[in-house]
Amino acid sequence: MRFDIITVLPQLLDSPFAHSILQRAQKKGLCEIHVHNLRDYSSNKQKSVDDYPYGGGSGMVMQIAPFAACIEHLQAERTYEEIIYMTPDGQTLNQEIANGMISAKNVIILCGHYKGIDQRIRDIYVTKEISVGDYVLSGGELPAAILVDAVVRLIPGVLSDETSALSDSFQDGLLDAPIYTRPVDWKGHKVPDILLSGHEAKITAWRHEQQLERTKARRPDLLND
Amino acid sequence: MRFDIITVLPQLLDSPFAHSILQRAQKKGLCEIHVHNLRDYSSNKQKSVDDYPYGGGSGMVMQIAPFAACIEHLQAERTYEEIIYMTPDGQTLNQEIANGMISAKNVIILCGHYKGIDQRIRDIYVTKEISVGDYVLSGGELPAAILVDAVVRLIPGVLSDETSALSDSFQDGLLDAPIYTRPVDWKGHKVPDILLSGHEAKITAWRHEQQLERTKARRPDLLND
Repeated sequence: MRFDIITVLPQLLDSPFAHSILQRAQKKGLCEIHVHNLRDYSSNKQKSVDDYPYGGGSGMVMQIAPFAACIEHLQAERTYEEIIYMTPDGQTLNQEIANGMISAKNVIILCGHYKGIDQRIRDIYVTKEISVGDYVLSGGELPAAILVDAVVRLIPGVLSDETSALSDSFQDGLLDAPIYTRPVDWKGHKVPDILLSGHEAKITAWRHEQQLERTKARRPDLLND
Repeated sequence: MRFDIITVLPQLLDSPFAHSILQRAQKKGLCEIHVHNLRDYSSNKQKSVDDYPYGGGSGMVMQIAPFAACIEHLQAERTYEEIIYMTPDGQTLNQEIANGMISAKNVIILCGHYKGIDQRIRDIYVTKEISVGDYVLSGGELPAAILVDAVVRLIPGVLSDETSALSDSFQDGLLDAPIYTRPVDWKGHKVPDILLSGHEAKITAWRHEQQLERTKARRPDLLND
C-alpha cells in the first residue's frame, strides 16, 4: 500500500513516520509513505501557495494550481484509488472506514492548512473527505498521520502478533476489558483474583462481561448500532 | 499553559511540536511542552516498562511503577489540574472539551502503547480519559499531539488572527461554508458570483445558508444537539 501525502509542512511529518509500527511497516516493505512539499509545485518565485479569500473574511485559502500540479504529476505515474482530503467537515473516521481502506493500493492524502483549501480542489479532485473528529486543528498533517497509522497497522504482517489488532477496542463493537500486569499487589491495589485463577473459560467470560459493562457505562451508543 | 507528556517514544513527537503553530506558541511563551521518556523511570537494567497480561492474551501491558515514578516526580514540582490518559475508550474529544481545557495551567498526558496500560494507573492517577475518535492507533503519541494542537491554538495570542479560531467549523455548531481564492476561473470552474459582488451583508447571508446546508447534508446530528 502506498500513501502520497501533500502538505506545506512536510517536516512536521518526519518523526511520526520514522518510528514504531509505521517505521517497521515501511522497512518490511508492507507500505510506502511519500511526503510531498506543496511549495515545490508553486509556479511563482515566492513559492506561495495561498491567497486571500473571495468575499473577505479572516484566514488564507490554499490555491488550486499547486495541488492540481502535484496531483496530476502523481497520477501520471500510477492510478490512485482515492484522493482524500483531511477536513473537519468530512466523514468521521472510525474503525470500519479504516478496515475498508486496506484494500486500496495507492492513496493520495491532501493536508489543508490556514483557513482551508479552495472548494474547487474538493469538487474536481477529491474522492473522499475524512475527519478524525469534531475538533479543529492547525492543519491536516496530524490527521493524515492518524489515518495512515490506523490503516497501516491493519495490513497483514505489520503487527507482530496477528491476533492483536482483532482484540482491540471497536473491532468487535465493544470497548476493551481492563488489563493488568505485574506486580499482583501495588501498594494495596490488587489484580482481580479471577485473572490469577488459571481458568481460561472463566477469564474469557469475565473479560466479555467487563467489555459489556464498560461499553454500557461509557459508550452506550456503540451498543445501539 | 504547560503540558508534560509521558511516552515510551519521545522522538515520535519531535517534529509535530517543532513546527507551525505549536512551535510559535512555545516561542512566544504562551505554552510549554515537555516530553518525558517513560524508560528513564524504569527501575530495571533493561529499562523495560511492560510485561505480560495477567490472565493471558496477546499484547504487552505497560506497568504501574514507571508511570507512578514519573507522575510523582512531576507532581513534586507543581500542581497538575489534570492527568489525562489518551485511550480509545475515553470520552470522545470535541471542540467543547478543547475549549474547556484552556483554563488549565498544568496538564500531564499519558501515552499508552502496546496493548495499553495497567488498569490501576487509570484508577489511581488518571483524572480524565480522552479519545480522539473511534479507531485504534499504535499508541497515544499522535492523539496527545492532536489534543495539544486543538487546545494550544485556542490560547489567546497564539493565532495571529484572533477571529480566525472563532470562525472555524464547530465553534458555532455548524460546518464551514465553502471558501475560494484566486483565480476566479480555473479551467471553467468559477468562483460563485455572490463572493465577487462586494455586498458584505449578502455574502454573510450566503455563507450562513451554505453552512446550514452543508451541516444538514453532512452532519445532521450537529443540528439536533
